[in-house]
Amino acid sequence: MTNPTAAMLVIGDEILSGRTRDSNMHHLAGELTRHGIILQEARMIADDHETIVAAVNTLRGTHDHLFTSGGIGPTHDDITADAIAAAFGVTIDIRDDARALLATHYARSGQELNAARLRMARIPEGARLIENPVSTAPGFSLGNTHVMAGVPNVFQAMLAGLLPNLTGGAPLLSQSLRVERGEGDVAAPLGALAQEFPDLSFGSYPFNRNGAHGTNLVVRGTDAPRLEAAMLALCALFPDGMT
Amino acid sequence: MTNPTAAMLVIGDEILSGRTRDSNMHHLAGELTRHGIILQEARMIADDHETIVAAVNTLRGTHDHLFTSGGIGPTHDDITADAIAAAFGVTIDIRDDARALLATHYARSGQELNAARLRMARIPEGARLIENPVSTAPGFSLGNTHVMAGVPNVFQAMLAGLLPNLTGGAPLLSQSLRVERGEGDVAAPLGALAQEFPDLSFGSYPFNRNGAHGTNLVVRGTDAPRLEAAMLALCALFPDGMT
Repeated sequence: MTNPTAAMLVIGDEILSGRTRDSNMHHLAGELTRHGIILQEARMIADDHETIVAAVNTLRGTHDHLFTSGGIGPTHDDITADAIAAAFGVTIDIRDDARALLATHYARSGQELNAARLRMARIPEGARLIENPVSTAPGFSLGNTHVMAGVPNVFQAMLAGLLPNLTGGAPLLSQSLRVERGEGDVAAPLGALAQEFPDLSFGSYPFNRNGAHGTNLVVRGTDAPRLEAAMLALCALFPDGMT
Repeated sequence: MTNPTAAMLVIGDEILSGRTRDSNMHHLAGELTRHGIILQEARMIADDHETIVAAVNTLRGTHDHLFTSGGIGPTHDDITADAIAAAFGVTIDIRDDARALLATHYARSGQELNAARLRMARIPEGARLIENPVSTAPGFSLGNTHVMAGVPNVFQAMLAGLLPNLTGGAPLLSQSLRVERGEGDVAAPLGALAQEFPDLSFGSYPFNRNGAHGTNLVVRGTDAPRLEAAMLALCALFPDGMT
């Protein structure tokens, strides 16, 4: 069985200007890995209509799933929902069920459901809502494209509700071995071992922390017994390592 | 005068699997903003030859500069330099000046300059070296493409040496106003103000920290007097705000 694939689109000028450090991509990456969906690419782009439309149409065609974050709030620079509708060639308008969610929420909090907030009920034709247990305004899925908020705790809550509905694959497992040697010393034996296990992925990541200097060796794959065999071989190559 | 544009390519399986949280993109974004270069897009991709070649050839053609991080170490999964050479259609081989740097470094540290470490002296034909004051193995610039290490302190040191050699534009300035109102309440006046200042970019970012709830309003642009005028208008709209 092959694993489903995914791409992510992080939408927002504040990421590219360096004002805000994105955390949604790293969160999504970990969750997808656990769910057995392979994140193949992430792109960070500006709040620009044509740019969003083009990226959505490229990435939704080349991956099983596309996840987006950002640009679905109430202000003038929140243009993601309209861009998604344009990318799919469907209409977009305020939808009754989304409006009802917002009406209940703002009535309870004593805030006005004004025109700006109503924009958050604009949903492309044919989309399914993604629940927002944090601040109510929903995300949505249209085809294989899942549109979520940029605020990290809202993004995380939406993803937690969405992910169980998506068919995953065998979870991507990883094991690591920490060795007290430089990357240049482990490179040759590690490369040879990687050729013996072409179904697994081998990575090496140097570290230099608190005076300790060495390399983390990481093996990834979906077959637990094969991963175990690779780790045994790795420990035999580097007996000073610690798993 | 228009500002030069840039894209970034973050290369590495460990980013997409969620094992490692990238920090180089955020660092580059801030440095480019200060240097007056507009980061228009960032992509995170896997250690895969064809994927790297295709992304490099797309992004170096659509932006004034392309910055890459990752994949220039000594191990089998460090394939960025070869992919860059393939993308540009030039040869790649061990270069004498890069080999000399490594020979001096490893002689001093008493480590062997073995075949794996020598791979870090493989430089595409016609490239200029980027100095690595942390761990010696150099990055390189080929045309408008600047190839740097993935290890954050090495990436930062390489960028610090490279950036003064690149022509920047007027620095991108930003000012922000923190208001104690929800995004939905500031949306309409903020949107109207944005239309009065089409040469500036207006963003709004909700926060909810330690019980305080409100919105950070951010104005960006290169013309300091215009930015000042926009901030005065913003403060008049939201007199309870604090800059």
